[in-house]
Parts: sequence; structure tokens; C-alpha cells
Amino acid sequence: MDQAQSQNGPLPMLETPLLLLDRDRLDANVARMRGRLSAFSLTLRPHVKTSKCLAVVERLFDGGRGPITVSTLAEADFFFAAGYRDILYAVGIVANKFAHAAALLRAGAALTLILDSLDAAHALVAYAATQEQQFSVLLEIDCDGHRSGLAPASPLLAQIAAVLRDGGVRLLGVMTHAGSSYDSRSTAEITRCARLERDGVRQAAALLEAAGFPVETVSVGSTPTALFAEDFDGITEVRAGVFVFFDLVMHGLGVCRIEDIALSVLTTVIGRQAEKGWVIVDAGWMALSRDRGTAKQPLDQGYGLVCDVHGQPIDGLIVSAVNQEHGIVSHRAGGGPGGDALRFPIGTQLRILPNHACATAAQFGGYHVIAADGAMPFWPRLSGR
Amino acid sequence: MDQAQSQNGPLPMLETPLLLLDRDRLDANVARMRGRLSAFSLTLRPHVKTSKCLAVVERLFDGGRGPITVSTLAEADFFFAAGYRDILYAVGIVANKFAHAAALLRAGAALTLILDSLDAAHALVAYAATQEQQFSVLLEIDCDGHRSGLAPASPLLAQIAAVLRDGGVRLLGVMTHAGSSYDSRSTAEITRCARLERDGVRQAAALLEAAGFPVETVSVGSTPTALFAEDFDGITEVRAGVFVFFDLVMHGLGVCRIEDIALSVLTTVIGRQAEKGWVIVDAGWMALSRDRGTAKQPLDQGYGLVCDVHGQPIDGLIVSAVNQEHGIVSHRAGGGPGGDALRFPIGTQLRILPNHACATAAQFGGYHVIAADGAMPFWPRLSGR
Repeated sequence: MDQAQSQNGPLPMLETPLLLLDRDRLDANVARMRGRLSAFSLTLRPHVKTSKCLAVVERLFDGGRGPITVSTLAEADFFFAAGYRDILYAVGIVANKFAHAAALLRAGAALTLILDSLDAAHALVAYAATQEQQFSVLLEIDCDGHRSGLAPASPLLAQIAAVLRDGGVRLLGVMTHAGSSYDSRSTAEITRCARLERDGVRQAAALLEAAGFPVETVSVGSTPTALFAEDFDGITEVRAGVFVFFDLVMHGLGVCRIEDIALSVLTTVIGRQAEKGWVIVDAGWMALSRDRGTAKQPLDQGYGLVCDVHGQPIDGLIVSAVNQEHGIVSHRAGGGPGGDALRFPIGTQLRILPNHACATAAQFGGYHVIAADGAMPFWPRLSGR
Repeated sequence: MDQAQSQNGPLPMLETPLLLLDRDRLDANVARMRGRLSAFSLTLRPHVKTSKCLAVVERLFDGGRGPITVSTLAEADFFFAAGYRDILYAVGIVANKFAHAAALLRAGAALTLILDSLDAAHALVAYAATQEQQFSVLLEIDCDGHRSGLAPASPLLAQIAAVLRDGGVRLLGVMTHAGSSYDSRSTAEITRCARLERDGVRQAAALLEAAGFPVETVSVGSTPTALFAEDFDGITEVRAGVFVFFDLVMHGLGVCRIEDIALSVLTTVIGRQAEKGWVIVDAGWMALSRDRGTAKQPLDQGYGLVCDVHGQPIDGLIVSAVNQEHGIVSHRAGGGPGGDALRFPIGTQLRILPNHACATAAQFGGYHVIAADGAMPFWPRLSGR
């Protein structure tokens, strides 16, 4: 006990696991993104799916209520209730969500939807005809073959635009997401992804305008491309989410330093397996998530990089396996008797940096905030989706 | 739209994704496990971490309040408040949770803790000396090198027992978990795991008794070994969790049929990528979890097996990739133009069977229950851990 206690540092007897958020790192990350985009006079429309937290998102707007991006209509409800009005729901809209979207519009939200097919456009137009509110839409463009969206030169763009116009749905413009930037191997490659992202959405915008459809919004977004694009010519707004916290995947891409990662899971050593060079901690996949985003990167971080209670990485130690409420901490290179992990007695607190901040944060009801001033407020999250 | 609507079957306009629980399958799975254990006159102490749901756990006890296993003290609080008194907290106890455990004891819970080290025993004894309540403990045994626990013949067993006795902590017996049964390739191999599990914990119990420490509880548990053990000689209780729902990992082990899986995620087609043979659905990792438990099995099910809205698997279709709120459905063998998935128009509802029921259920606030009688109650879960 004495030995364990002396290692516990500033957070002596909190029940673990819990989610720590370093406020100073958060603020520095926000300042970095805002500084970068303000140099280009671009609107930042942060993706709030990363934090799902009012206190975090407020810091992006100095306490104001700027434009946001959401991944679910529950997020839209949550942030709208807190005063956010300009909301982009950035997942293709489908009929079972029309009534929810209409309710948000009726309540006064400036909600924008996205779609990428004639079928969805026809469905929305048919529904909109039954409603008094006007729906607004961006067309989703596929800039890199990553997931969803229309090809930048697709003849469907103008056809869909015509369906929307004829049906009284307002087409605001186009949006895309350079999802493939997450698979880059260098910042130079990210810069190339950003070029594809910019060019794809600009090409689509030009095609629409040439067909007589005015384009007011040309939206791109991903944390890597937002930070490493050469320019944003022709772009009106940038969406990005994970930059508020960063994570090991972003570090592996060269987008941030380890010491920029604002999120960590506080955990406690609950067992030791000396023959194997393991210690067991009380953070399993319920705390860390099952995300293995670094598995495909040059440096595989297992289920997370192990730090001491002050957040200092411990050379070579990762969470190598997880069950629901157990994590196995061992050396990256394997262990065996006398492994590095064994220096930590039962009761030692450790901090685990996450592979993917969005996924790890989603495993908790909120953030225990640590800051230089020593206060430790709890910032709740929208729980669930 | 018309085509989509006609596919929607019995659940026409629910907002997706959501978690469906087939009550008849749940009841059949419960009956199977109870039938098996009652043939051996064994106590079932279900692991409630799978469902974290009062309505599910009640069905295990015909509405009564039997003994349960929990993975967190929050689960203990939740079930104790609902009348469950006999609770085993099956994760190694550590100092930052002593006060919480003491509060449960003070409130009247018959809470049992586990530990596997002299350090933890000393810490608990030191804490117990400051409390009026008596703590009860099982020693955790490592039957298969899977994770935690003392070797079955470890000389530490009697040393720890002496520390506990001298410190006034009640030692009830031993427990183990055949975690390696999840890596089996046949039910015959599961049966061998069950033998290891039984033999390991029995050996530890015999060693303790020979050293003068009475053993009243000899506890084993995992769904595969509970269902495929040859016998349970010398065992007093069985813990198992995932059998209530089953999942694709259990199916891959040969433990259940596809049509026994009681849990599925209802999702909707929101996009199509014809060139790639994909459809995009609105169930990403926030709905399905990132669990890839079938990746190491002979049949890799991706992030889940795709079924029609009635729960009938669609040959060869899996969720091949996920982002936060997007899933990509494609053929297991890859797709390309004209892929099977493309037969589903936008708006089609699909059901996804999960790799790992515990992980997928944890992504939702509760269960939409489907049953032959057509009622569709919502059964809430303890949210978070």
C-alpha cells in the first residue's frame, strides 16, 4: 500500500478507470487549428462527435455558439438545446430521420442535411412537400474513393440539384471528407490528400454552377488535411473533429506530438504475472475501446500507449491485450520474466493514451479535467449517440 | 422510396441504428443454460456485464433475485438497488475501490471480492481493520495462462489465505475463468479447456484445504466451458454471461447456431457505391463496436453478419468496414460492380448480427425487444460501466 500510495501522485484515490482531459493541451490544440484556418479566412465548423461535450465545444468559440458538424441527430438536439443553431448533419439523410430533422427545423435550428443519390433526393422532396419548413442540403462528394459521395464529375450532380430545386429543397453547395488522409504515411502524402479533397469538391461546385445552380458552401474536412493543406482556394469552410484531443493515430500520421494528446485513461495496476512480464490494469475495452487504429501504422501502439500518472510515456510499454474490464500491459517487443512492466506494484496509477480519441471518449460519461490551476471539474458528455 | 418502404417489414419508420433483442431467443438461450446446469445441480451465477439490464437478468431467475457476477462496482450498485444481494465482483480488487465496496457491504450487499496477490491481500486487510463490515474474498486462479490469477499449485495460496485469516477477512474459496476457451477451434477443444478449468480450481481448493483453510466456493465460468464441460465434479457454481444473447464469436466456436443469436443492430441503407459493390449503412462502430473477435476464427465476419429485416442472413454479406456512424456492407469475398449488396435500395432496413454481444450491447442505452406477441418494449441498460 505505501509503495502504491507514493506513486499515486496528484490523483490519489479516485476510482479507476476514468477519462482525463488535459485542459491546457485542449486549449493549445484549439488555438493551433484556429490560427491555421484564420490565416486563410476560413470558417471552422468543428465536428463535435469527437467530444460530444458542451464545455469542450464552447472553447472552440470563446464561449459563443458557432457553426458545428454533428454525426447524429441526437447530437443536433443536444447542441441545439444549448444554443447552437447552425448545424450540419454530416451523414447521408434517410427517410426514417426526416421527421426528426423536421422537428429541429420547426424548433428553429438552421439544420443542413447531406445526400448523394437521386433516391434520397426524391425521398426528401416527397417528404418536404408535406412540411412547412424548408430543408437545406449539401451534396456529398467522394474525393478519394474512401466511403460515400458522388464522383466530382458525376452527371448525377446536376440531376439531383434539379430534383431538389423543383421540389423546393434548398441546395447550399457541396461537401467532402478526405477519409483516406488517415491512411497516409507522411505529411507530404496528407498534403496530396488535401489537394484531392480541395480539387474534388471544387470541381463538383464548378459543375453545379455551370449547370445554373448557385453554390454558396464548399466544405472540406479532416484534421490531417485541415492542418497540412497548402491552400484552401475556393473552399468556404473546414470541418475537423479530433484535433481538439488528438490521439495516437494522429501522432502516427505526423500530425501531432505525443505531448499534444489531451486525452488519457487513468487506470490502476490490479495484478502481475511475473512469468510473462505483464501487469494487469483495470482499463479494458470498456474503457479504451476496441479501436486498433495504429495496427496499420509503422508503430503499432496496441490498445494504447502506457504513461506514468503524470502523463510521461514509459518507454516501450503498451496495452497489448484487453478484455471487458482488464488490460494487459507489456513491452511492445514482448516480455517474459523480468519484463519492464513489472516494476509497477499493485495499486500504481498509470495513464493510457488512446489510439482513437473519438472511440475512447465514447466509452465514458464525461471528462475529469486536469489543469495547471489544480481544479478538477467533471465535464459531462452526451451519452450514447 | 416505395421499394424501400416495402422492404421495411414490421419496423417501418424507427430511427436507426438501434439494438434489437429477440425475446424468444433470449428465453431459449436461458433455458438451455439452466437446463444444462440443473442436470449437474450447480448454482448459476450469471455474469450480468453482458446485458447490464434488469429485465434480462430477471428472466434468468424467473423474476427472483439470484446470485450474480459483475464486472464493475457500478453494476453492483445498479443490481443491488434492484434487490440483488449476492454479488461477486470478478475483477481484482484494488485500493481505490475499497471504500465503494465497503459502502455496498454497509448497505447490506453480500459482496464478494477477488484478489490474486499478497500485496492486494495486505492492502485489503489494512483497510478492513478500519471498517466494521467484514469483507469476503475468493482467490483468483489462473487455469490456462490466459490473464490473471495464481497458479493452481502456487505456494502463495496458503500464504495469502493466512494473511486474510489473520486480518479478519473471510476467504470463501477460489474462482477461475477459462478465457482460453474463446480461442478454441472445436467443441472438443472447449471440453479440454473445461477440464483445465475444473482441474485448476479444484487443485487450488485442495491445496487450501490441506493447509487448513476451508473452501466453500469453487467457482468456474465461461459460456463455452459451461456448455461443453464433461462434468463439474468438485465445482459449486458456474459463472457465464454471453449465453443470454450469443454472438458470432460463439457461433464460430460451435457453441450456438446463427438462429440462436438474440441481439442484432437494426440499420438502414443510406448510400450506394455501385462501382465498388458497396452499400453504406447508418451503423458504424458507435453502433456495432470495433470488436473484431471473428478475425482470428476460420470465418471472419468483419464487423458483423448482414441479415434482412426479419433476421435472415444474406449469403456472404458482411459489414466490411466501419467509421463512427457509417458501415460499409459488401460481399465477404470482395465485390466490385454488380456486387450482391447493391440489390438493396436506399432506405432498406437490414439487421447486423454482432461479433461480440457484450461489446455491441455496450454501445446502446437499451434494447428494443421483439417478440412473437408483437409488443416492442424498451429495456434500458445501465449506461456506461
